Amino acid sequence: MPTSLCDARGVYPIAPTPFLDDGAIDWVSIDRLSEFYLRSGATGVTVLGQLGEAPKLDAAESLAVAARFIQAFGRTPVIVGVTAPGFAAMRALARESMAAGAAGVMIAPPNTLRTDEQIAGYYAQAAQAIGADVPFVIQDYPLTFSVQMTPAVIRRIVQDNPSCVMLKHEDWPGLEKISALRGFEHDGSMRHVSILCGNGGLFLDFECERGADGAMTGYAFPDMLCDVVRLQHDGQRDAAHDLFDAHLPLLRYEQQPGVGLGVRKHVLQRRGLIQSAAQRAPKAALTAAARAEVEYLLARLAQHDPRAALPPL
Amino acid sequence: MPTSLCDARGVYPIAPTPFLDDGAIDWVSIDRLSEFYLRSGATGVTVLGQLGEAPKLDAAESLAVAARFIQAFGRTPVIVGVTAPGFAAMRALARESMAAGAAGVMIAPPNTLRTDEQIAGYYAQAAQAIGADVPFVIQDYPLTFSVQMTPAVIRRIVQDNPSCVMLKHEDWPGLEKISALRGFEHDGSMRHVSILCGNGGLFLDFECERGADGAMTGYAFPDMLCDVVRLQHDGQRDAAHDLFDAHLPLLRYEQQPGVGLGVRKHVLQRRGLIQSAAQRAPKAALTAAARAEVEYLLARLAQHDPRAALPPL
Amino acid sequence: MPTSLCDARGVYPIAPTPFLDDGAIDWVSIDRLSEFYLRSGATGVTVLGQLGEAPKLDAAESLAVAARFIQAFGRTPVIVGVTAPGFAAMRALARESMAAGAAGVMIAPPNTLRTDEQIAGYYAQAAQAIGADVPFVIQDYPLTFSVQMTPAVIRRIVQDNPSCVMLKHEDWPGLEKISALRGFEHDGSMRHVSILCGNGGLFLDFECERGADGAMTGYAFPDMLCDVVRLQHDGQRDAAHDLFDAHLPLLRYEQQPGVGLGVRKHVLQRRGLIQSAAQRAPKAALTAAARAEVEYLLARLAQHDPRAALPPL
Amino acid sequence: MPTSLCDARGVYPIAPTPFLDDGAIDWVSIDRLSEFYLRSGATGVTVLGQLGEAPKLDAAESLAVAARFIQAFGRTPVIVGVTAPGFAAMRALARESMAAGAAGVMIAPPNTLRTDEQIAGYYAQAAQAIGADVPFVIQDYPLTFSVQMTPAVIRRIVQDNPSCVMLKHEDWPGLEKISALRGFEHDGSMRHVSILCGNGGLFLDFECERGADGAMTGYAFPDMLCDVVRLQHDGQRDAAHDLFDAHLPLLRYEQQPGVGLGVRKHVLQRRGLIQSAAQRAPKAALTAAARAEVEYLLARLAQHDPRAALPPL
Repeated sequence: MPTSLCDARGVYPIAPTPFLDDGAIDWVSIDRLSEFYLRSGATGVTVLGQLGEAPKLDAAESLAVAARFIQAFGRTPVIVGVTAPGFAAMRALARESMAAGAAGVMIAPPNTLRTDEQIAGYYAQAAQAIGADVPFVIQDYPLTFSVQMTPAVIRRIVQDNPSCVMLKHEDWPGLEKISALRGFEHDGSMRHVSILCGNGGLFLDFECERGADGAMTGYAFPDMLCDVVRLQHDGQRDAAHDLFDAHLPLLRYEQQPGVGLGVRKHVLQRRGLIQSAAQRAPKAALTAAARAEVEYLLARLAQHDPRAALPPL
Repeated sequence: MPTSLCDARGVYPIAPTPFLDDGAIDWVSIDRLSEFYLRSGATGVTVLGQLGEAPKLDAAESLAVAARFIQAFGRTPVIVGVTAPGFAAMRALARESMAAGAAGVMIAPPNTLRTDEQIAGYYAQAAQAIGADVPFVIQDYPLTFSVQMTPAVIRRIVQDNPSCVMLKHEDWPGLEKISALRGFEHDGSMRHVSILCGNGGLFLDFECERGADGAMTGYAFPDMLCDVVRLQHDGQRDAAHDLFDAHLPLLRYEQQPGVGLGVRKHVLQRRGLIQSAAQRAPKAALTAAARAEVEYLLARLAQHDPRAALPPL
Repeated sequence: MPTSLCDARGVYPIAPTPFLDDGAIDWVSIDRLSEFYLRSGATGVTVLGQLGEAPKLDAAESLAVAARFIQAFGRTPVIVGVTAPGFAAMRALARESMAAGAAGVMIAPPNTLRTDEQIAGYYAQAAQAIGADVPFVIQDYPLTFSVQMTPAVIRRIVQDNPSCVMLKHEDWPGLEKISALRGFEHDGSMRHVSILCGNGGLFLDFECERGADGAMTGYAFPDMLCDVVRLQHDGQRDAAHDLFDAHLPLLRYEQQPGVGLGVRKHVLQRRGLIQSAAQRAPKAALTAAARAEVEYLLARLAQHDPRAALPPL
Repeated sequence: MPTSLCDARGVYPIAPTPFLDDGAIDWVSIDRLSEFYLRSGATGVTVLGQLGEAPKLDAAESLAVAARFIQAFGRTPVIVGVTAPGFAAMRALARESMAAGAAGVMIAPPNTLRTDEQIAGYYAQAAQAIGADVPFVIQDYPLTFSVQMTPAVIRRIVQDNPSCVMLKHEDWPGLEKISALRGFEHDGSMRHVSILCGNGGLFLDFECERGADGAMTGYAFPDMLCDVVRLQHDGQRDAAHDLFDAHLPLLRYEQQPGVGLGVRKHVLQRRGLIQSAAQRAPKAALTAAARAEVEYLLARLAQHDPRAALPPL
């Protein structure tokens, strides 16, 4: 079992899937984004997540997108979202992605799971379905998936499945959960796995201090996320918070469910990192009012962070 | 637009997907089942539904199963379940199935839909995604999908989308919904579509009387369903209820969520219609106690219906 | 701690709250119903349950209704539903009911509970809130409350709370749950509590065989429930099923969510046991079509059970 | 019908219910809080909301708490949360509160509502239950109540019920909803009602710009909320955002579901506005780590807003 993902640190951006205005996959922007992520200090990337509009791709497209990111990232690890309504499709994408060079896969629970037994049972079956040689990441995101995993359930999944290597932590609230899980490690009841935090980064400032290893989220300034995690790891707490707080108004704006993807693609396009902000259906386009609000937030942010100083629309 | 499905009547069994004990698809049993359905008087069939373990097949298997049923059914219509987490996969299976000879497709709503707007919007987008030339069936099954469609929303979907041809009705309770929808037809506010009822057949005795055109469900005695619908359409009300009531104890037993599939495959195997009762994971095997209860119910049923007199285990 | 409820057997009907046509509480019918229940062989009764329209009473009315049933039942135990959105109101009704002579109280979980921890924690807090001297019944009804309790969670509640005396079992499906809980008793991991089954009685025929002690449900022929449980306990299996099966078409009709209360009050009124079928708002009145269906079911039932032979409307 | 609440502007803090360490209601702190709210510029107050731990009070306590706030607020309007599982209890508290001098009541939907019909029907029944003379506020908070109201449904409630005077807006995301509702006013399809925004204030900076009349939320610096709303109404956009942004790190921290109440009571106690941060069960106490994080946030905030410069713990 590759142990590297268990020890992952830093920032794994959740990559959007760039489309051209006609809905075709924008391969050029995948390369451009990847190059930018690496230059910003990303230590990995996750593709085909919720933000990546994964359900809007068919099976062949999913594999092709994953493969393109893998190629662009070289030796830097790529995690592929393989969440699916059934194990046949999950297994197919997981094994094909690993064959293409992925470092691991990410699995979210179906929103019908309720009891601890059901959750632990699901991950055990999923781990078996994809094969014990495929490292996997638990995605713990109750706000979207309606599945609530206690720290004890996560521990059980980790202990029962040697191929579990990481937690994408995005419970809300979640700070105490990080402390509880790190407490399990300290008391010897759970082996170490990497904890990278999602939830739009809304609590990243404190998550690192609680014991998280970094971030895995799609905020449109992943370079800021990298800086905050690095500052925290370097013990520069105030500087980390200063930078984070400057971004918080925009970051908070991006975290709105449904709207968030539109904002992120819009800002990434404004930054020149993708050619088009197009989404495939179902999509939620930004209104003129929302675009103006984003411009205002960018202008205010630019007073603190020159990366937000963008050429006018 | 083919109008035949709008006027569908009778019984479209929901076909299980038969597997061999090793999990491979059992092509021989598909043919045997199909031959049995046709002999029993089925006027169509629906494949790759919930009962058909559709999410447990990968994309290639799904199409192959649909094609095999289509071939076996000849000119009798086959409806293919194409429910998917995204429109790309839905479109692919829908168009490939139609190319293989399907009569139409069935679409269940994602369980995140809440408001009337969301539901109507989803079906409009789905209809566009699969193409306006593909007849589709609305699956209205709140108990499983947690999406509640009022009669007014169903009317809106029917009126907005000319390719909508049928309602698989399995709201619970649902008798008044049938009356309301037929009332919309009578007052001219909704065009006619076929209404075939699911919900395990638990209310089939009265559904026909309320205006439903028949049944679309997976009860292991589809031949009984055909008889009840025929008796009702022939005006033999008491005889229809007598036959239905004799089956009700077993039918009720089969309708248990989760357990039902195991019971149905078990009884179909007992009847010699499929080779194995095997399910793919995730599965819920029948306990010895449950198997004994089914035997008891079959023995009691055999006193009223000789089709239930099966050779001992 | 009174041990009697732990060993309860037989049938505890869920009593409706009878109203007059103007919405006032019908005290006369409470007495008449109680007298009928006792004459039918009920070994207890449960009041202020879901069926009892409990949320439609204010605090003073709730206590008054409970007290009237308690007075009418004499030494036969009365269980009072005290489910409430907070512990203050729950405690008040529980303690007042016990002071009035109730044998115990019933508590359903709030539908926000998800994890095993949350469920066990809730019942521990509730038990403390009402006082350790108040025997309580767990209501396990996921179809209505959306809370899924595994057998292990129920065991934990029973073991953690000495005042837990009974399970109102209405999971669906639930037969295996009864077997699992009785298995816990046999292996010594759980003390004995009474299990009375709800769910409209839809599986009562087999629930007794699995180890349930009887029924707690609101079917409008509680006298039939008493007979079935007695026949099962006397070892007359076929006779029990014969009687049950004769009632199943009507019983199934009554079990429709939302509609069920209207059907039950209507049939109880038809039987002369309550003066009016009136409900307080929010209510779902029976349509003419539904009333005609009930008449048809009653007429068919009367061929098997003379108790269903009612004077014409 | 009193029209004043229809035209309400400014800030209605959601008041917590202060308890002493032993769980008794802290009447002195109610007066102190009220005096502080008025001094801060609050134009009203809402009591017995979610934040107010309303379900943890019994009927008599609820009325007494409401009456105490009403007395303390004098002629400034007090809105009383009367959300209840049934109309009898809702009516009782509503009418008693109005008799005690409340300006109106607030009603949240039960979390079982799904369709537009159900939502509109519920509010029509509630309005009738409390009486047409009682002004009521719609609480639109899907994140907590799981009920999704479209702008069209809100319009329908407003138009159907003359006693509807205000929307407590806390959909998430919600900016476009404000624009849509104000658009309905402009096109003449909906009469004017006040829109005060909740959701912890997380988007208050833009909500005013979209047409909201102010805030109704429980952030522990209601004085800041008053300032932001006043600055926005005075056209000092940048100043409003500067102040808001300074508070955003703490405000965001407070908005964590479950934890939020603990943080708010802790900060209010730190500010000397309530004597104790005690909650009644079920409660979620702040961990030492959380308290330290709040102190850090307060210290950072004090650099921008002297009101956050508190004496050390």
